[in-house]
Amino acid sequence: MRLLQPLFRWDPVEAEFSNHARVQGMLDFEAALARAEARAGVIPASAAPLIAAQCRAELFNMDELAQSAARAGNLAIPLIKRLTALVAATDNDAQRFVHWGATSQDAIDTGLVLQLRAALLLMESEFETFSSALAHLAETHRATPIAARTWMQQALPTTFGIKAAAWLDAINRDRLRLAAARRNAEVLQFGGAVGTLASLGAKGLDVSKALAEDLHLALPDLPWHTQRDRIAEVATALGLATGTLGKIARDISLHTQTEVAELFEPAAPRRGGSSTMPHKRNPVTCAVVLSAAARVPGLVGTMLSAMVQEQERGLGGWHAEWETFPEIISLAAGALHHLTATVSGLEVDTARMAANLELTRGLLFAEAVQMALGKTLGRQQAHDLIEAACQRAQKENRHLRDVLAEDAAVSKHLNKEALAKLFDPAQYLGVAEQFINRVLAAHAAQNAKKNPAKEGR
Amino acid sequence: MRLLQPLFRWDPVEAEFSNHARVQGMLDFEAALARAEARAGVIPASAAPLIAAQCRAELFNMDELAQSAARAGNLAIPLIKRLTALVAATDNDAQRFVHWGATSQDAIDTGLVLQLRAALLLMESEFETFSSALAHLAETHRATPIAARTWMQQALPTTFGIKAAAWLDAINRDRLRLAAARRNAEVLQFGGAVGTLASLGAKGLDVSKALAEDLHLALPDLPWHTQRDRIAEVATALGLATGTLGKIARDISLHTQTEVAELFEPAAPRRGGSSTMPHKRNPVTCAVVLSAAARVPGLVGTMLSAMVQEQERGLGGWHAEWETFPEIISLAAGALHHLTATVSGLEVDTARMAANLELTRGLLFAEAVQMALGKTLGRQQAHDLIEAACQRAQKENRHLRDVLAEDAAVSKHLNKEALAKLFDPAQYLGVAEQFINRVLAAHAAQNAKKNPAKEGR
Amino acid sequence: MRLLQPLFRWDPVEAEFSNHARVQGMLDFEAALARAEARAGVIPASAAPLIAAQCRAELFNMDELAQSAARAGNLAIPLIKRLTALVAATDNDAQRFVHWGATSQDAIDTGLVLQLRAALLLMESEFETFSSALAHLAETHRATPIAARTWMQQALPTTFGIKAAAWLDAINRDRLRLAAARRNAEVLQFGGAVGTLASLGAKGLDVSKALAEDLHLALPDLPWHTQRDRIAEVATALGLATGTLGKIARDISLHTQTEVAELFEPAAPRRGGSSTMPHKRNPVTCAVVLSAAARVPGLVGTMLSAMVQEQERGLGGWHAEWETFPEIISLAAGALHHLTATVSGLEVDTARMAANLELTRGLLFAEAVQMALGKTLGRQQAHDLIEAACQRAQKENRHLRDVLAEDAAVSKHLNKEALAKLFDPAQYLGVAEQFINRVLAAHAAQNAKKNPAKEGR
Amino acid sequence: MRLLQPLFRWDPVEAEFSNHARVQGMLDFEAALARAEARAGVIPASAAPLIAAQCRAELFNMDELAQSAARAGNLAIPLIKRLTALVAATDNDAQRFVHWGATSQDAIDTGLVLQLRAALLLMESEFETFSSALAHLAETHRATPIAARTWMQQALPTTFGIKAAAWLDAINRDRLRLAAARRNAEVLQFGGAVGTLASLGAKGLDVSKALAEDLHLALPDLPWHTQRDRIAEVATALGLATGTLGKIARDISLHTQTEVAELFEPAAPRRGGSSTMPHKRNPVTCAVVLSAAARVPGLVGTMLSAMVQEQERGLGGWHAEWETFPEIISLAAGALHHLTATVSGLEVDTARMAANLELTRGLLFAEAVQMALGKTLGRQQAHDLIEAACQRAQKENRHLRDVLAEDAAVSKHLNKEALAKLFDPAQYLGVAEQFINRVLAAHAAQNAKKNPAKEGR
Repeated sequence: MRLLQPLFRWDPVEAEFSNHARVQGMLDFEAALARAEARAGVIPASAAPLIAAQCRAELFNMDELAQSAARAGNLAIPLIKRLTALVAATDNDAQRFVHWGATSQDAIDTGLVLQLRAALLLMESEFETFSSALAHLAETHRATPIAARTWMQQALPTTFGIKAAAWLDAINRDRLRLAAARRNAEVLQFGGAVGTLASLGAKGLDVSKALAEDLHLALPDLPWHTQRDRIAEVATALGLATGTLGKIARDISLHTQTEVAELFEPAAPRRGGSSTMPHKRNPVTCAVVLSAAARVPGLVGTMLSAMVQEQERGLGGWHAEWETFPEIISLAAGALHHLTATVSGLEVDTARMAANLELTRGLLFAEAVQMALGKTLGRQQAHDLIEAACQRAQKENRHLRDVLAEDAAVSKHLNKEALAKLFDPAQYLGVAEQFINRVLAAHAAQNAKKNPAKEGR
Repeated sequence: MRLLQPLFRWDPVEAEFSNHARVQGMLDFEAALARAEARAGVIPASAAPLIAAQCRAELFNMDELAQSAARAGNLAIPLIKRLTALVAATDNDAQRFVHWGATSQDAIDTGLVLQLRAALLLMESEFETFSSALAHLAETHRATPIAARTWMQQALPTTFGIKAAAWLDAINRDRLRLAAARRNAEVLQFGGAVGTLASLGAKGLDVSKALAEDLHLALPDLPWHTQRDRIAEVATALGLATGTLGKIARDISLHTQTEVAELFEPAAPRRGGSSTMPHKRNPVTCAVVLSAAARVPGLVGTMLSAMVQEQERGLGGWHAEWETFPEIISLAAGALHHLTATVSGLEVDTARMAANLELTRGLLFAEAVQMALGKTLGRQQAHDLIEAACQRAQKENRHLRDVLAEDAAVSKHLNKEALAKLFDPAQYLGVAEQFINRVLAAHAAQNAKKNPAKEGR
Repeated sequence: MRLLQPLFRWDPVEAEFSNHARVQGMLDFEAALARAEARAGVIPASAAPLIAAQCRAELFNMDELAQSAARAGNLAIPLIKRLTALVAATDNDAQRFVHWGATSQDAIDTGLVLQLRAALLLMESEFETFSSALAHLAETHRATPIAARTWMQQALPTTFGIKAAAWLDAINRDRLRLAAARRNAEVLQFGGAVGTLASLGAKGLDVSKALAEDLHLALPDLPWHTQRDRIAEVATALGLATGTLGKIARDISLHTQTEVAELFEPAAPRRGGSSTMPHKRNPVTCAVVLSAAARVPGLVGTMLSAMVQEQERGLGGWHAEWETFPEIISLAAGALHHLTATVSGLEVDTARMAANLELTRGLLFAEAVQMALGKTLGRQQAHDLIEAACQRAQKENRHLRDVLAEDAAVSKHLNKEALAKLFDPAQYLGVAEQFINRVLAAHAAQNAKKNPAKEGR
Repeated sequence: MRLLQPLFRWDPVEAEFSNHARVQGMLDFEAALARAEARAGVIPASAAPLIAAQCRAELFNMDELAQSAARAGNLAIPLIKRLTALVAATDNDAQRFVHWGATSQDAIDTGLVLQLRAALLLMESEFETFSSALAHLAETHRATPIAARTWMQQALPTTFGIKAAAWLDAINRDRLRLAAARRNAEVLQFGGAVGTLASLGAKGLDVSKALAEDLHLALPDLPWHTQRDRIAEVATALGLATGTLGKIARDISLHTQTEVAELFEPAAPRRGGSSTMPHKRNPVTCAVVLSAAARVPGLVGTMLSAMVQEQERGLGGWHAEWETFPEIISLAAGALHHLTATVSGLEVDTARMAANLELTRGLLFAEAVQMALGKTLGRQQAHDLIEAACQRAQKENRHLRDVLAEDAAVSKHLNKEALAKLFDPAQYLGVAEQFINRVLAAHAAQNAKKNPAKEGR
């Protein structure tokens, strides 16, 4: 295990990209190919089960494969050689039909598609848990006042519920995008050496169809050896989702600061300590998620620039994908998993949220007063008047309400009570609640649509 | 005009991102806002037309706006100040309701959405032209033999038609993705200072709906000030499309090499000359498209990392989008436009394609022989036998056919005629034609779906 | 002027990358080439002044050049055509020797080198101002206590002086790196069509030397048409410097938060306001610098991947540099310039710094107590004891000092007075002052070295 | 072993970044710290050897460390806990002084510096081998004619020697840059919790000096916990070097194409075969190096954007480096190692190079004729005349020489013999040889400077 794996990654998804899983993905292709070709009458019916029986990753020595791959230039060549030997050891006839009519990239790409399907389905399930945790926060805190910050400055009151709903809103879209990208990528790769299936004569499409069916994959209009947009689309969808996760982590990290102290990652023994400062409780998950959000964009950029692949088989571009694409899934899955745990146990200090609303001595309500005055004075004049009052309040270290109360231009339009009411956060939340409801409804609809049928494949 | 604009860009899309267009986008928001608020009874009905009448970019001094924006931190603040003054000059009452209840980002983001819609619709139309040119190539050259190259080495015969079909296949998907991303992004931005529309009291949603309708935009579940996935999704879809364009350009550039000489960019006076070499005809479009494919990935990476925006208004991340996002559209549109012209006039030398198939003295047909022998010998043994024959042919500088004809292990299974037939490119194209048909059908279906209704918005 | 230029950029550097400057850079090459070739006896002595006299950008129509460049594939071809016509209009003999023996890339690259030299010298001077402002902060606040934050949590006391010194320390290195990169890049590009100077026969090196001397550039060992590391090195040095600027801006933005309020960007009328919230004072410069730090890395990545240029002239990679490289300089220069102004006028609230040190009720001094106890208890045991005390203090909402005073394990080793002294920030600053001195000395040495000689070129 | 490690990486450098090496790097810091503190009288002299004796990575369970690091947020915390327990098991007194006064990042960063030093020294030695192989090619082929290609079109004759010299020229610079970046990064990290060494009172600098000396590292002016430019500089130097390697690999891949066939990767059994095409000999190393050149730029971008680290300890940015930085070294080292082997055994077909010079029927010599005519006609007129002749030659499928011989405007200035001589490649190489000599001299000087002293550290 790499030393930083448990910190940055998520074990179930890691398992889908282990050496074993990578080899098994290719072997699943080879086994299905033999079955499909037997079904189409291309190879003897008896050969298929004999080939399939040897398509088990545990029969392959990973270090030998690795060394041979370095000579051959890809993993499929030594794997097929070894598979042929294994089959030959049980039946000399069947060994003739191993990998019949296929090319290395057919096995490598289809294997990858099988891996990414498994990994993304795990992530989709985790996203469901994550979004439910966000929905719970939005519901629970729909009326919890908190200071909204723009440009990292307190701006106006809002609710913690709408903050959570805004996080959820983006996640709703990320889930749809990821599922769509996965479905677009769940296609067979099968074209033979140069994408014509020449080696199968007229039976190429029959075998293709049977093979796609066997692997529960769609049959593309054409092999896609050097048209990498489907894989790259999955990378971009993960890039977008990681961006959303990073935004949430940034927010939590800001609310967790000593001076703000409104949110805390869930406490646990030995969690987020310091090697030297005994009082520290560091937001470890935020660091992990923000690090993923810093790393994934560059990797997505690599996937996009690697799309420029030559002719019928790329030289360098394809190879650049081999480690980059799994890394994107791994980092995104790790960020998702750790943030799910953290948001599910997030500690919310509503008292501190309320207290922080008082820090500016009323400046936070400047817009509320401006809007009230603006109806008569006009927006711009009211803006200028209040801006001046804000500066006075800050300079004289007084509450904005008191400064305004002395201003004749204000009191002409607003009496004491009306003015006081403008400084109540609960009175200046607009349609926050309706926005929350819209997002929760979309979330519920998405789950409802997903769950009954459970998208049977 | 920037010196390199005509080389790298496409004028109609550039126009959508001029200073004028950027300002007009924000003004369109302000005009629609006034109308929507009048309709919802938030501002006096008389104010709306008076405000809208001043929402014309030509009334604004761009250099003054630019200088003021540097102080204010965004373009909307000086723009609204100036708009208010313009309205005030015609009616002192109406000026009170300029930008009522909105925040700078509402105007900036909605303006951007209007710009991107216009630009993407232009691109979608150009993509239609482009894909028709590709379809024409695929149709015309469905039986034109050409050497397929893998790892930049001649591999097997294929047809130029299937090469074009494979390009088209990816473009089919890019078009769907771009249209989907555009539709996802065609949403109103309207949340007021912190996304609650507090300044509009209970009428926030009514105004939102009217405003979205006025601008022909969808109403999102929630304002998206710091949830940038929709914009970033457009960036990624353009990144994927540019990757596809780059792949096509790389292919053309390889086929255009002096030593290959199968394809040529259309000739034109003074096109692709050299300042010093009178015989040169450089593939200028390939350079332009490849340069876009090299530049866009890094910009997409920036859009993804900029998604990590703080709380209710980002500090730095949002600002990073302002020039980056238009640049992505501009470069992608330029690449698309120039490649469309080039592919539409592409010169195809079918005689040279045929001649190049002979360069390897039969090595190109090694797999065909291997498959024929493999049925009896087994794939791996046949592979090894042919591999040795290939090496002999190369060493002795002879045609593979002649070397094989001498080999008893071969002649046992294949007589002279059977062997000769294996060296005919037309005999080893598998289901290339069926693949072409599938892609052309998908292309036709996409156009059919798009055109009758012309996607009325 | 682009609308966002004054916000993101710095006018003097922008001027070095205007259309005019780009054209003038190439013309300076052409004029110097004529002089060098006259000196070497390659062209008639009389031709040189006649050619040089027309090498003035104002004689060239930028829009026409732009349109022609789109056909030709680069700017040099139409520029040379036009220059030849201008010379011909004055002297038909001299026109024969325009651009003699050179290739387009010679003019384009050398022109670029001249532009980058001018821009970097401007930046070096601005960096000097910037570092002096940082040195002033480090000196002034060498004893000003402030809470150090790690993982965005208060950690221990430190001084604002050492924070500023740490910023300066990185800038000291960035300056050295940038000057070195500039010097490495100040080389002539001159190789003729393919880098052999074949067109000049045996006189190639003589002309090269004279040309380099004329332009005050170094003569490289070899032309570098497709060896782009010098240019890319400048890009990386700017990338590193922008990273440092971004780090400083992030720090300032965190200290500027409403809840921290220790630092403020200098106030100015209309600076950092909000279109709707009258009390806002947004850290505009931080946003600008952080946006540059978000954008430059992707552009540097493009420069690095564009290094893979084909054979004797790149196809796409070279073209990708043309706009990317100036953009990197422009964004870095803009960030530098705006941050210099902001740091020079930075408002420092030392009272608030002191007050914030009290926020944790003594937790900030946990390590100090631990170290005092550790001498007898051992580091790990002391750590565990204090960690428990910290948790108790937080739970019971008490000062850590009071909790510890009750603990027999503590009072055995520390009496009241000794304990109280451990909670004085001034007592726990280690060698902060010495570190500051080291950095200030390095800064002074760098300026001393630079200024007397003023690095005569 | 990861399946693709032998293909993409280089074992000796991989070993420097194994789990074991990472842990040993931190333990080397801890051992040296104890010795330095004993020397400075900060901890008992007896404690140092007892601590150092346990600083052996084989005493640590990697999986346990990994799991604990996920809770703690970094590797140092569980490592120090375990180290303390190991020391305690031998001596209860000494265990009190483990990690005395240091912070996690001190151990992690200094450990990283030790790893990077070892890895870069390995790479520097490999670069020496690589550059000698290039020098050998430049020397051997200084007079071997080959067609120079610009824009991937044959342009003029050049020599293969100058191509190799141009590769070497860039490598000369990359070596200098890497060595400089290594030296800049060979600095101690030691600042304690927040960079003041508060925990060591007045002895901080004494300990620092002793520690730096013990580890053969330089003492920086200030700790650099959140000033990451030194590490990032190494990343950029590797990015530049990988770009150069990628350029060389691209060139080789182009010369290796079936239709060009001038260069070949060294043959070896099972090297670069195909799973289905027996005649294939794929340029595996080119693919590996080009894939590194596609991947490293995005990773360098991540290092640059991760420089924006908060206050006294970054949240996310620092963590983003942990896997990214070793990955950059690993990919660059792999590319270097594989390309060194390939270039050392490169097969050069000089006959084919000569044959390819004839492909254009003289067009390649167009510039030579133009220069000869230009002296009398003027450059632009000669250019236009030859351009027309080139078009005629192509259209009529004749040799340019023959077309020109018929042209009165030509024969007026050039007789048959003079014309024929212009079509001899050896006559049009300019100062290629002198350029080669300059580069070889620089290479020799660099090695001479490096080797005698062998840069004793």
